[in-house]
Amino acid sequence: MYSNLHMPKGFKCAGISAGIKSGGAKDMALILSDEPASAAGVFTQNQVCAAPVKICREHLNHGVARAIVMNSGIANACTGSAGMVAARDMAAETARIIGCEPQEIFVCSTGRIGPQLPLEKIVPGIGNLFDVALGEHIHETAEAMMTTDTRPKVSVADMQIEGKTVRILGFAKGAGMIEPNMATMLSFITTDAAVEPHALQAALKKAVDSSFNRISIDGDQSTNDTVLALANGAANIKPLNETSKEWETFVHALGNVCHELAMMIVHDGEGADKFVAVNVVGAQSDAEADLAARAVANSLLNKTAWAGEYPNWGRVMDSIGYSKARVDETLVSIHYDDQQAVANGMRTKIAQEELIKVVSQTDFAINIDLHLGEGKATVYTCNCTEEYVRINVE
Amino acid sequence: MYSNLHMPKGFKCAGISAGIKSGGAKDMALILSDEPASAAGVFTQNQVCAAPVKICREHLNHGVARAIVMNSGIANACTGSAGMVAARDMAAETARIIGCEPQEIFVCSTGRIGPQLPLEKIVPGIGNLFDVALGEHIHETAEAMMTTDTRPKVSVADMQIEGKTVRILGFAKGAGMIEPNMATMLSFITTDAAVEPHALQAALKKAVDSSFNRISIDGDQSTNDTVLALANGAANIKPLNETSKEWETFVHALGNVCHELAMMIVHDGEGADKFVAVNVVGAQSDAEADLAARAVANSLLNKTAWAGEYPNWGRVMDSIGYSKARVDETLVSIHYDDQQAVANGMRTKIAQEELIKVVSQTDFAINIDLHLGEGKATVYTCNCTEEYVRINVE
Repeated sequence: MYSNLHMPKGFKCAGISAGIKSGGAKDMALILSDEPASAAGVFTQNQVCAAPVKICREHLNHGVARAIVMNSGIANACTGSAGMVAARDMAAETARIIGCEPQEIFVCSTGRIGPQLPLEKIVPGIGNLFDVALGEHIHETAEAMMTTDTRPKVSVADMQIEGKTVRILGFAKGAGMIEPNMATMLSFITTDAAVEPHALQAALKKAVDSSFNRISIDGDQSTNDTVLALANGAANIKPLNETSKEWETFVHALGNVCHELAMMIVHDGEGADKFVAVNVVGAQSDAEADLAARAVANSLLNKTAWAGEYPNWGRVMDSIGYSKARVDETLVSIHYDDQQAVANGMRTKIAQEELIKVVSQTDFAINIDLHLGEGKATVYTCNCTEEYVRINVE
Repeated sequence: MYSNLHMPKGFKCAGISAGIKSGGAKDMALILSDEPASAAGVFTQNQVCAAPVKICREHLNHGVARAIVMNSGIANACTGSAGMVAARDMAAETARIIGCEPQEIFVCSTGRIGPQLPLEKIVPGIGNLFDVALGEHIHETAEAMMTTDTRPKVSVADMQIEGKTVRILGFAKGAGMIEPNMATMLSFITTDAAVEPHALQAALKKAVDSSFNRISIDGDQSTNDTVLALANGAANIKPLNETSKEWETFVHALGNVCHELAMMIVHDGEGADKFVAVNVVGAQSDAEADLAARAVANSLLNKTAWAGEYPNWGRVMDSIGYSKARVDETLVSIHYDDQQAVANGMRTKIAQEELIKVVSQTDFAINIDLHLGEGKATVYTCNCTEEYVRINVE
C-alpha cells in the first residue's frame, strides 16, 4: 500500500517502532522538509489539551518549520509540567539532529491519557527515525500514526501551477473520539508549493472546517487533535497567497485532500460499518442547520438504528426536535437517499422495504428539509455497533 | 409485587391488554379519582412532541382532572392532525364514561413514533379499563406503562398532616432516551392531599428538576415525556399551599417519590448494569457544574469504560474539557468514591487496582472538583453495554 507513492518534493518521512506500543507495532513517525517550510496548524478546542498541542501552538508563532515528530500509544495529556518538559525535549532532540531551532519542530502525540512519555524510548526513537528517514516511507509513517485505526490513511492531489507539477500529500489517523471541532485525530499535510504562512493558515482553517470538522463518530472531542500543514516551496513556484491567480487551484486541492482524509476517518470509525451523510437544508441559518445535523449524527438511538438497518425516521424527527435549531414539525421532510420517508412531519405512504433498501447500503444519505429558511449543513457520521462498545470497553 | 399496596384514598387504577402490543402484553392503563383533583404537569421540551403532550398541556389549563388514560406500544408522535383527533377521542371516550368534561382527562402515549393509534382497540380498551378499575391494580397499571422497561416502577410515601395519614403514590416508566429535561419517560403521581393547583404545579416542577431532570441514559430526549400529578383531597385536610405549615412536609415527600422513581429508571436503563452518580463541585456556577456533569455522564467513551470496569479518568478529564463549563485543567481533582485518581489535573500515585475496585461495584460515584467556585450539580447515569446497542439495533 502506498509503495509507489512519492512525497512532495523536498520531503522525506519515516515510521518506526520505538517500543512505546507493545508487540513491536510502529509508534513513532517523522516528516522532514529539506528546507524551512511555511507552517499552519489547527488544534483541538478542548480546554484540557495535551502538552504537544500547547507546544505546537507556541511553535506555530515562528511561522516556519522543518519537521513534525510524533508518537502514538501515549497522548502526553494530563501530564502537567513533566509532560511539557517531555514534549519540549522531543522537539529539542529533533532540532539538534537537524541543526535548527526547536521552534521549527512540531511535536504530536496520540494514545492513552495520563502516562508520561518514556523519553528513554522516544530519544533513541528520534535518532532511529533520522537513520530511516533518508527515504520516503509513506506507508510506514501513516502506520506509525495509528491507534485503534484499522488502516493507514493517506491522500494525495497533484496540480499544475506555472507549468510545474505541485503535489499535496496528507496523512491522517482517526478512529474514536471524532466530533465537532475534531477529536483524537491527527493529520499532517505536506506540499511542495510555496505558500505564504498567513495564507496557508487561512486555507488550512477553511479546509478543516469543511472536512475534519464535519465528521462525527461518537460525539467526544479529544485532548490531542491537531492538523498541521507544511509548504516547503520545493516545486519552485512563486509563493502563493490569496491574490495569486492559482490560489483557488491550491485551495481546492487542499480541500480535496482534507475531505478525502476525513472520509477515510469516518469509514474507519471504531466498529463502524456504515457511513451516513446527514444533510440538512431549509434551516433558519447555516449554524442552525449544523445543530440539527449534529443532533441527528450524534444520536446513539440513530446510530444503533442504522446498525440494525432499520429506517427509524421517528428517532431522526426526535433528534431534530431536541436540537437547538428552530423546528416546526409540521414542515419537516426527510428523505433516505431519494426515498421520502416523512412529509409535513408525518410518514409518507412509502413501503418500509424501500427505506430498508437504503439503510441496508454501506453508504447512504439522510436528507432533511426544515422548510424554514436557506441554512444548510452536512455532517458525515457512521453507525454504532456492538463492536464499538466492545472496542471501548476494552 | 405491589400486591399489598394501596392507592391514596379516592383513587382507583387498572392496567389491561388492549391488543396494541403484540403477544397480549398489558398496554393500557387508567388512573381514576373519585372526585375532581388538582392537577399539575411537566412536559418534554422537545420541539417535536406527541399529540397527547399537546392535549395534556391544553387540558392542564383547566386546573382540575378526574383521570389519566394511557397506552404503550405506540407514541402517537409525528401523527399530524389525525393523531390529535385520536388523542382527543381517547380523552372524550374516557370523559363520556365518567360523565365529566374531556378537559378533565389527561392522555398519554409511549412507544413507536409514526404509526396512528388504533382507535378500534383503544376505545374498547377504555371501556375494559373502567370495568377493571373498580379496584386498585397498582402492579398492573405500572406494568401497562412499560416499553423496554424490565420491571414496573412504583414509589410511595406517607406523611402525617393534621393528624391524618396522607399518601403520595407515583408510577413511572423509563428505559431508553433519558436525558436532560426528561425523555421517553412517563410518571403519574397521585395523592390524597388537598393541594391548590398553582402550589402543586410549583412543587412538581421543583421535584422534577431535582429528580427526573437529573438522570441521563443515552443523551436522547423524547417526544412524549410527561409527569402528571393529581391531588384529590380525599385525605380530608385543608388545601395546602406554599404558606401552609405542613408545606415542606408535602414537598419533601413529593421530592422523595420523584427521586426514588428517577433512580429506578436509571437502574433500569436499557442494557445497563452499573449506576453512576457524577458529582461536580467547584464550578463557577451551578449551571456550569451541570454542563460538566452532563458531559461526563453522556460521554459514550465514559459509559463504555464503566461497562468494562475500567477507571479511565483520562476520558473524564477529556469530557470536562470539552463541556462548556470553564475549566483550568491544572486545578481539577477527581475521586472515584473516596479514592483520588486525579490531583491538579494529573494522576495521583494511587494503585490502579484501588480504582478498579470502585468501578467494579454496581453503584459508585465520580466526584469532580473544578476548584474554581461554588457551583455544584449531580447527574445520575448508567453504563453503556453491548446489550444497549443490541436492544436499540432491534
